[in-house]
Amino acid sequence: MHPRIYQALASPIVGHLDPYFFEVMDDTKDLLRQTFRTKNEITFPIAGTGMAGMEAAICNVVEEGDEVVVCVNGLFGARMSDIAHRNGGKVTEIKRTWGESISPADVKEALSRCRKPKAVALVHAETSTGVLQPLSEISKIAHDFGALLIADTVTSLGGCELDIDRMGIDVAFSGSQKCLNCPPGLSPMTTNEKTMAAIRNRKTRVRSWYFDIAEIEKYWSQGRAYHHTGPISMVYALREALRIVQEEGLENRWTRHRKNCEALVRGLESMGLTMLVKDAQERLPSLTAVRVPESIADTTLRGALLNQFNIEIGGGLGELKGHILRIGLMGLNSSRKNIVLVLDALEKVLNDQGHAVKR
Amino acid sequence: MHPRIYQALASPIVGHLDPYFFEVMDDTKDLLRQTFRTKNEITFPIAGTGMAGMEAAICNVVEEGDEVVVCVNGLFGARMSDIAHRNGGKVTEIKRTWGESISPADVKEALSRCRKPKAVALVHAETSTGVLQPLSEISKIAHDFGALLIADTVTSLGGCELDIDRMGIDVAFSGSQKCLNCPPGLSPMTTNEKTMAAIRNRKTRVRSWYFDIAEIEKYWSQGRAYHHTGPISMVYALREALRIVQEEGLENRWTRHRKNCEALVRGLESMGLTMLVKDAQERLPSLTAVRVPESIADTTLRGALLNQFNIEIGGGLGELKGHILRIGLMGLNSSRKNIVLVLDALEKVLNDQGHAVKR
Repeated sequence: MHPRIYQALASPIVGHLDPYFFEVMDDTKDLLRQTFRTKNEITFPIAGTGMAGMEAAICNVVEEGDEVVVCVNGLFGARMSDIAHRNGGKVTEIKRTWGESISPADVKEALSRCRKPKAVALVHAETSTGVLQPLSEISKIAHDFGALLIADTVTSLGGCELDIDRMGIDVAFSGSQKCLNCPPGLSPMTTNEKTMAAIRNRKTRVRSWYFDIAEIEKYWSQGRAYHHTGPISMVYALREALRIVQEEGLENRWTRHRKNCEALVRGLESMGLTMLVKDAQERLPSLTAVRVPESIADTTLRGALLNQFNIEIGGGLGELKGHILRIGLMGLNSSRKNIVLVLDALEKVLNDQGHAVKR
Repeated sequence: MHPRIYQALASPIVGHLDPYFFEVMDDTKDLLRQTFRTKNEITFPIAGTGMAGMEAAICNVVEEGDEVVVCVNGLFGARMSDIAHRNGGKVTEIKRTWGESISPADVKEALSRCRKPKAVALVHAETSTGVLQPLSEISKIAHDFGALLIADTVTSLGGCELDIDRMGIDVAFSGSQKCLNCPPGLSPMTTNEKTMAAIRNRKTRVRSWYFDIAEIEKYWSQGRAYHHTGPISMVYALREALRIVQEEGLENRWTRHRKNCEALVRGLESMGLTMLVKDAQERLPSLTAVRVPESIADTTLRGALLNQFNIEIGGGLGELKGHILRIGLMGLNSSRKNIVLVLDALEKVLNDQGHAVKR
């Protein structure tokens, strides 16, 4: 976390209906719109983690009997499918091997099998595999079929190109703790007017009270009606994080993440390691998934990195458990210094484990 | 907030699957059990505000067609009813004037009209009215009818007598920002084994993925399976808050809140003001609802307190909007110093408004 974010987090707390906090809320909404690149009025953080944003996105759009196409090429796609099911959706899953992206043709084919598809849900930045999903063409196809596009942007917001309005994303949710460098616990979200109209036209009420976006909006808009108690300290932190993003400039930040990711990959490949995502264009700049050499347990590798070098690296999730390392270079931590640090440590640990690697 | 809690909040962050954080989680669970006075294995904070805990409590227990008795004598009772409806519950509301408590006879009568009641939901500490709801007799009645007791303990945990196991509360949820003095954003929750058995016997899945308690438990127990990203900084803060509670001693803390509330009420009454809750036994020690004199707008009163004295006082919610002030004396802030501060300020503001009050 950036020192300024620690400081914001520990700033003196006020009430959630305090006029000062309303200013903080308005700042946060403006900064979020700039960071999401959207004009959407409904743009604010959900009071929960990224998964809360996922549930909010889906439970507001999907009601009993709605047809939904969900792209499943990693853990988070699978979760969106689960949530759509729990909300009574008739789900068509597009399944692809973890580590591959979803093609526009796949989406078109799935949509053409629906009678009246309500939404396509996919993951822009699949944190479980390191895949960056191309979106623009899929967005166009979804709209041609009259479906809304819901995108998980947890690991892309502030870390790689994301332009909600230009890309035609109707609903997006993110997480505070990835490329924004906040603590986990908030899920920035944005929803356009077309989606709000669809929500207002629901036949049944949203199954969740806590995530009912029309109710949350009453607190985050000028009405200031009490819905939940705004998570003050976390919103302070998020505002500061978004200011830091704007100070650097969004495009500068995207470029930095991309260049640093490329440098990391070059270093890993020079040690003979293999990336999970084959196509360099589809590699997430903020998270690099690298295959664990077969003869080493990933827990040994990650344990040594943590205990000897104080470097915390994610392991594989779901079907990739044990098979990959997920190296995050997010926000402040996407730096040349960190790349050298992790490559040196990895080289040392692999050599200790009997792998004669050398960069 | 206590200075130690600010410090904990801004402590260096680690990953949500870091062995150090697992220790923090285990500490937090132990401390929460002591504070809730329960042996319940399932005792942890939900990653959202108090309203998230409310939704988690109800959506896990109540499924399509379940009969639920909900006690509605304030805003939070009304919200529990709303959430039970959204989960398909067949809701019987016991409605009482805001500011009054629910009688055991009311609950018995409502339950006797059900075929097979699944749960009784009520608010132990109604933050919208300042009512402390007597529980033990109602708990016995609920159990006689085979129903579970769900209690909102948002404003009672750590501030007044609460003994989950002895009182026979089957599910309780609370908030981090009331008598625990943390920032808002976590909802401590506890659920007994009888309730978990009922949840395991559901015919349908829990409608919420994010609040599915059996899934959340997999992260908060030794399995450490990834469900959501633990809100690290907030859990640091909660652990520190619970340590402070235990250092003072739970019963000492309850006594302090009760005595300070009594002193506040004496001061308010000496100014000729009237309490909303008539029965002194049913007044919440952590929150005192006092009627606003008819000739003054509550916004004028609260505005002057905030702007001239830097004292933030809650206004009335729902049907009590404009009619009451809600003076919180919670945790650290339940002190003689604060009582004198608020009484002096109130006296000054009322006099400025042309009310010749004198203590």
